[in-house]
Amino acid sequence: MGYAISTTIDQSFDEALSAVRAALTEQGFGVLTEIDLAATLKKKLDVAIAPEVILGACNPPFAHRALLAEPSICVLLPCNVVVRSADDGRTVVEAIDPATMIGVTGNPALAEVTGEVAARLRTVIGSLGSTV
Amino acid sequence: MGYAISTTIDQSFDEALSAVRAALTEQGFGVLTEIDLAATLKKKLDVAIAPEVILGACNPPFAHRALLAEPSICVLLPCNVVVRSADDGRTVVEAIDPATMIGVTGNPALAEVTGEVAARLRTVIGSLGSTV
Repeated sequence: MGYAISTTIDQSFDEALSAVRAALTEQGFGVLTEIDLAATLKKKLDVAIAPEVILGACNPPFAHRALLAEPSICVLLPCNVVVRSADDGRTVVEAIDPATMIGVTGNPALAEVTGEVAARLRTVIGSLGSTV
Repeated sequence: MGYAISTTIDQSFDEALSAVRAALTEQGFGVLTEIDLAATLKKKLDVAIAPEVILGACNPPFAHRALLAEPSICVLLPCNVVVRSADDGRTVVEAIDPATMIGVTGNPALAEVTGEVAARLRTVIGSLGSTV
């Protein structure tokens, strides 16, 4: 699964979500959007899935640099950080690997900024607990 | 620019944004998130860019199918539709091409659902005016 920076941790969904928010703030990301996917699918389709939330994380200086390098980059922003319950009571946290944006756009000028964002997202994920 | 389905239209930013919202609704997409990028960069960095909004569009039945095919797909959802002012007074509208999700994930099982979503996004973009 090479497109996400991820970990599985021995925390409840709510604990993990709270820890992710704190770690994102610590690394300079604001959470601009939030989708409660489980609630959305329940409401719209009456389908039950395990708790899952998509946070849209944005570090404005990096977003601005990416925009200057690639005018259409916003179809790939913000960086999603997903928190979802695993079957075994643990919680999966996975962030998009910004390196994927180089492949999708074919624009190597994004390498520096996506590398810096990826490093910060790895710090966020790494701060939560050991990768399994 | 192969990763977006896009058009440039002879409408003001506000007119285009309104038309995009209506077209998304018509094609079964709800707008779950909205980022006013220009306002965000102004507030956080005191940088002025042309009006640009990122809409996070979600069609729940398709999202659910994608999730069943690829458990980590939510790092790539919802589908962004960006509306941004062009220099010449026209407005660019660009949606992520969901076909990119197959390449990023390496999962061909996503082909059917991403194809159907792409067809709907092309209808949205095509309804706005001629591609330039």
